[in-house]
Amino acid sequence: MSVRVVALGGGHGLHASLSALRQVASDVTAVVTVADNGGSSGRLRGEFGVLPPGDLRMALAALCGDDEWGQTWAQVLQHRFDGDGEMRGHVVGNLLIVGLWELMGDHVRALDWVGRLLGAQGRVLPMAVTPMDITAEVRGLDPADPARLTSVRGQVEVATTDGEIVSVSLDPADPEPCAEALEALASADWVVLGPGSWFTSVIPHLMVPRLRRALEATQARLVVVLNLEPQAGETMGYGPEDHLGALFEHAPDLKVHTVLADSGTVRDRDLLHQVVASAGAELLVCDVAASGDSARHDADLLADAFRRIMLGA
Amino acid sequence: MSVRVVALGGGHGLHASLSALRQVASDVTAVVTVADNGGSSGRLRGEFGVLPPGDLRMALAALCGDDEWGQTWAQVLQHRFDGDGEMRGHVVGNLLIVGLWELMGDHVRALDWVGRLLGAQGRVLPMAVTPMDITAEVRGLDPADPARLTSVRGQVEVATTDGEIVSVSLDPADPEPCAEALEALASADWVVLGPGSWFTSVIPHLMVPRLRRALEATQARLVVVLNLEPQAGETMGYGPEDHLGALFEHAPDLKVHTVLADSGTVRDRDLLHQVVASAGAELLVCDVAASGDSARHDADLLADAFRRIMLGA
Repeated sequence: MSVRVVALGGGHGLHASLSALRQVASDVTAVVTVADNGGSSGRLRGEFGVLPPGDLRMALAALCGDDEWGQTWAQVLQHRFDGDGEMRGHVVGNLLIVGLWELMGDHVRALDWVGRLLGAQGRVLPMAVTPMDITAEVRGLDPADPARLTSVRGQVEVATTDGEIVSVSLDPADPEPCAEALEALASADWVVLGPGSWFTSVIPHLMVPRLRRALEATQARLVVVLNLEPQAGETMGYGPEDHLGALFEHAPDLKVHTVLADSGTVRDRDLLHQVVASAGAELLVCDVAASGDSARHDADLLADAFRRIMLGA
Repeated sequence: MSVRVVALGGGHGLHASLSALRQVASDVTAVVTVADNGGSSGRLRGEFGVLPPGDLRMALAALCGDDEWGQTWAQVLQHRFDGDGEMRGHVVGNLLIVGLWELMGDHVRALDWVGRLLGAQGRVLPMAVTPMDITAEVRGLDPADPARLTSVRGQVEVATTDGEIVSVSLDPADPEPCAEALEALASADWVVLGPGSWFTSVIPHLMVPRLRRALEATQARLVVVLNLEPQAGETMGYGPEDHLGALFEHAPDLKVHTVLADSGTVRDRDLLHQVVASAGAELLVCDVAASGDSARHDADLLADAFRRIMLGA
């Protein structure tokens, strides 16, 4: 049975969903946030004005071939330089991707070449073809007036804010989406949103206007995968229903087919069920956390959950 | 007809001989100088204490596959970052090779992986497995005493000295050669030395004691390819016979089968013939320079010359 899936996200969360989806879907397209301004990606973006490559690289590595070839090149591309010189912290795959962009002048073609190198079982696309910044309205940063909203700019700064994030937006506000990502959404059977840093890797997809409209227009069914625990900084104190609430506040017209939550994260099942049902969606609660690591999804368990949702298996 | 060739050199000269040999030999092994201390290679060597990767990368690119795959990856690996930030001047393939070395901890295995990536028609090995420095005794640097010898240290410094190079040596003086390079020499049919920066890419091979002994002991026939013009700095004012003279001063026991010189470079054919004959070698003078670029060998013409020498064709 042919199942075409588009997975949206970024960072380790997208790596987890792709590691599971490659076991389930016949055709996987990853659409990746490109707002990172920290680490190796931030440095390369600052130096060359390119998209931040890190999350794209990580998604490609998640889809690498099962054989020695794919596994080895994935390891090489994920290798981070140590030491104490100018290369410290840079990642081999980030440099390779930027080199390909410079050489080819075409984001998608270059990423397809890295995919071929890795024998990737799927395709990795940026959510937009220009770099962007995330800005957030944050409450609680002003000791003199805890109710006042403060603007915080930058993915790193938003992800680590001490305040409470009220909303996020993008700068530029209407970035050019990746045409191939829109096409993939139009022809997908399923779309998977999350897990991942909620305000800086997941919700940004909904803030690209043309990408959000494609998500609202697609006939594909949307699965929202909730995080396993709140993230220090951006979602401190959030339960599953708060994650969902933030999603709908940013995209009220989003049609969700299934919400997937880990058993261990659900404190008030009735409340979560009520929030999910009021959005017209199904709730699936099952064990998808890696044993011994409450923050990480287990790829095989997540694949089992996707099979239940997408294949009824 | 199976012809196994080992080519020794470095930089653009080795790139030229490999570009020709891949058309002629059934089995090509490049053995590459690893004394570079300048540019991207010098920075990486300084930061990570690894072999300078640049000449190894260039040799691998020369052997890349003929198809779109090999050609594209060779272009990517040869791509040099521009701009004005910390990456300026670094070359993608250098970073990839250093990443592989860090990950695998095995110089030869890592280079073989890059060779597989490129679909390389042959193998590229370092002449030694530890980085080293070239030092030269140079005459004419002291205005007060033009006859005095001065020590100059470093490949860049030696290659660009204003004085006259009397001799070069290595530090350490007896670096550990690459075992696979010694094996390749033992089983080769032909060995090609040069063209290239004479004192900093060609002669250094003869200064690695165990590599020189392997060159003296091999049953393979040795072809010396002379440069097309003197190089500003290290061989200013040198004619073909001076290049040969410098070679024999550094390795008096070297048995040479054929000396290949470009017609345009030979001013005094009798003199050159006499120097070559006194070394017990044959002289082949023919057109091997690229049209319009007197410093660069034409790969096809050089291949023709190798065919005449190695295949009698």
